[in-house]
Amino acid sequence: MEYDAVMRLALERGFYFPSGGAYADAHAGFWEYGPAGAGLKNRFVELWRREMVRRGSMMEIDGSQVMPRSVFEASGHLGGFADPITRCQECGATHRADRLASEASGRDVPERAEPAEIDKAIAEAGARCPGCGGGLGPVERFNMMFGVGIGPDGGEAYLRPETCQSIFVDFPRIFKTMRGRLPLGIAQVGKSFRNEIAPRQSLLRLREFYQAEIEVFCNPARMGEAPDLGEVAGVRLRIQDGDSVREVACGEAAESGLVPCRLIAYYMGLLASFYEKTGIDPGRCRFRRLGDKEKAFYAEAAYDFEVEVSSGWLELVACNYRGSHDLAGHASGTGEKFEVMDGEERVLPHVFEISMGIDRSLYAILEHCLREDPDHERTVLSLPPYLAPVQVGVLSLVKKDGLREKTDDVYSGLKRGFGAFLDHSGAIGRRYRRLDEAGAPLAVTVDHQTLKDGTVTIRQRDSMKQERVPLEGLAGVIGRMVAYP
Amino acid sequence: MEYDAVMRLALERGFYFPSGGAYADAHAGFWEYGPAGAGLKNRFVELWRREMVRRGSMMEIDGSQVMPRSVFEASGHLGGFADPITRCQECGATHRADRLASEASGRDVPERAEPAEIDKAIAEAGARCPGCGGGLGPVERFNMMFGVGIGPDGGEAYLRPETCQSIFVDFPRIFKTMRGRLPLGIAQVGKSFRNEIAPRQSLLRLREFYQAEIEVFCNPARMGEAPDLGEVAGVRLRIQDGDSVREVACGEAAESGLVPCRLIAYYMGLLASFYEKTGIDPGRCRFRRLGDKEKAFYAEAAYDFEVEVSSGWLELVACNYRGSHDLAGHASGTGEKFEVMDGEERVLPHVFEISMGIDRSLYAILEHCLREDPDHERTVLSLPPYLAPVQVGVLSLVKKDGLREKTDDVYSGLKRGFGAFLDHSGAIGRRYRRLDEAGAPLAVTVDHQTLKDGTVTIRQRDSMKQERVPLEGLAGVIGRMVAYP
Repeated sequence: MEYDAVMRLALERGFYFPSGGAYADAHAGFWEYGPAGAGLKNRFVELWRREMVRRGSMMEIDGSQVMPRSVFEASGHLGGFADPITRCQECGATHRADRLASEASGRDVPERAEPAEIDKAIAEAGARCPGCGGGLGPVERFNMMFGVGIGPDGGEAYLRPETCQSIFVDFPRIFKTMRGRLPLGIAQVGKSFRNEIAPRQSLLRLREFYQAEIEVFCNPARMGEAPDLGEVAGVRLRIQDGDSVREVACGEAAESGLVPCRLIAYYMGLLASFYEKTGIDPGRCRFRRLGDKEKAFYAEAAYDFEVEVSSGWLELVACNYRGSHDLAGHASGTGEKFEVMDGEERVLPHVFEISMGIDRSLYAILEHCLREDPDHERTVLSLPPYLAPVQVGVLSLVKKDGLREKTDDVYSGLKRGFGAFLDHSGAIGRRYRRLDEAGAPLAVTVDHQTLKDGTVTIRQRDSMKQERVPLEGLAGVIGRMVAYP
Repeated sequence: MEYDAVMRLALERGFYFPSGGAYADAHAGFWEYGPAGAGLKNRFVELWRREMVRRGSMMEIDGSQVMPRSVFEASGHLGGFADPITRCQECGATHRADRLASEASGRDVPERAEPAEIDKAIAEAGARCPGCGGGLGPVERFNMMFGVGIGPDGGEAYLRPETCQSIFVDFPRIFKTMRGRLPLGIAQVGKSFRNEIAPRQSLLRLREFYQAEIEVFCNPARMGEAPDLGEVAGVRLRIQDGDSVREVACGEAAESGLVPCRLIAYYMGLLASFYEKTGIDPGRCRFRRLGDKEKAFYAEAAYDFEVEVSSGWLELVACNYRGSHDLAGHASGTGEKFEVMDGEERVLPHVFEISMGIDRSLYAILEHCLREDPDHERTVLSLPPYLAPVQVGVLSLVKKDGLREKTDDVYSGLKRGFGAFLDHSGAIGRRYRRLDEAGAPLAVTVDHQTLKDGTVTIRQRDSMKQERVPLEGLAGVIGRMVAYP
């Protein structure tokens, strides 16, 4: 499906929409999840907890979004976390300099290029202000963190630009109090904030966004060990290798050296296995190894996990081997010891990061799951049942003859345990179509036979098959139909 | 249990701890949830979704934390959401003026009193700066919202001081696209931010905190209707009535007029029933009707749901009948229509709000569930099994003879579906004690008999009883033991 079709679904079915309602001063880059989107996001996060955090024997924490200045001095964000911008000399509009230069020159000018290099590319390509055609001022770096003043005296702090810094800062305490052992994965899900110059494409580039980040603390001398690799050895990894994509089993990728070590292979397998369960087409996913200019300023080696959508390849997850950059920085910033014991050895752990963008992942799920079914004149959102915000529609065939009351009873019995939606109004066919489009895998319909023999029909979204089942035990039947694989 | 015992547990067992680690510039009022606390919080939110949102047939949304200036002009927060402060003329320290005045005068000076009134109380009581004894300057109002600048030109926005404003702003869109009907409950859980002058007592007064808010949109002419009241009619409500607390069934409270109407009674019943399942002692909870000076600036009638902890009565939930204040404000701010159809009638809905503080609720749960068991020389955190961050410890009796490997297998089979904790190290009794203190309701132990007959022991935290069960079907047995009531 195309971006526009997904956007139409999002707006019409309550998945997401711009923040700030009808207010004229609503800022770009802020979006809200409606009931369908919030349900999908919550279930996505639960699946991540199940398939990444718990399966990988990790710990999850939940830290502050507002953090003090020193944290970002030590992390390097105050110095290095900045976008190249240029201001139009005529109209004063601000633009992302690297994007202007790339578009005007027809070649890739990376965002991490030096300002002088971007200036040169702009000059050579003769780029002008896209708004008014005016000349462009010198390229500068604009720090993307939002500052916040604490207390009446305005103590300096920032909204976190990534969730992971509290994981690093809290690492010594967590390792000690939770009796940690290397390798130790610590995870966090929550909001991060970046003052983007040019937010765009709804969920794809936001100023306020959801991340699910995992930091694996490991002994750099033991990257060849991954005791649980066997659990994911059969998972297929698609790895970009030069111009082509190689598809290999995770275990083989580790043994053949296609992936640098067994430890990293294990987490790549865990990640690929997770995404296989989200409804995203595994055949349109790849791990791509990044070149030096694309990498985040702290990354020593990096893979992006990308998915193909209508507009091209979209980065969903950044997998970075960050070395000792983070813990060494905070050790030096605090004077605290960040070394821990690994067996008999004292070690400053290295970090392998799995940094997931949730909003983009949800967009990709919607685009891959949405389809037209012209034979049956319907639009279907084929979400996996355990991710669907509405798991079961509960419908009365007609409202009269006591069917409404009976349907209300059935709904009451299901509503706590499932995402259930009660619907009495309109033609039954129309109600099924709406449920199909909202991604509800099941519909239970109460009809006249229900009053006679205590059975209802269950209709399945994808096959459109209907079968009669007894009301007694209905919750169990539905539970099995929407269970995790 | 006392505050100090809960704090000790929190720090030593990974429930919560101050944000910012060892950094000297870490700001007061920011705390982090460690692995145990994040697990408890996540399960608390899931229980809230089950027992409030889904049981009450509500919709949940997830909106931006950063919102534009006009939203808070219309809501009244830019004008009215301010604490009275006074600055010491000698040392420059800032203090909450109402608290200083209350402490010095020995009588309650409400935070919503006029600055001149607080000035007078300070002067009469002869209050001085608690830090240096200096004289105090005139009382002013300090706005508690954190400002945020958007984009390179610093567009004006604020971190939301409560989650509900996006619910109001988005109401017309949600009502329309989700085919809403009055009464309609819309819920949101997430972070809110208040620039408190004097944050204190860890989770009890934070600058960054979790709320779970519900806004019920209703027709003011139909407050006497609540079709689902029967579902909670038997729930016991404890209502402060003058100096005494009356305990009555929810249905009776509605019919007798002790609660103003059936609609409000229904939601109070839903709320009381929810808290009964959290492990908080229902006998130490009450609904307290607020006097005029205590009420939030927008509330026409208000109940606090309070719980008794070691330091006194603590507000967990504010239930406010807000009338048409919110929707009328945003209708006037945007020029958009906020009226909807209720049957044949066009109506500007009124709002009944159920605004829950999650952090405080978690504190109260910990205090009420923590107990010493001197007979068995142990500390026990008797969390309900469905709220426990670790639901099952998985232990090898000893590591040798293949028991470690067998235990690892058992753990692998359980880890995705449950909060499971694998523990091989230390005396078995000591490992049980640690699980008791962490609130784990169950421990599965693999011993030599396991290798012979494929059974393990399950130990229950509260009774300390152990029974042998077969490994086959173990997940089902545990699932029933930790299921929702």
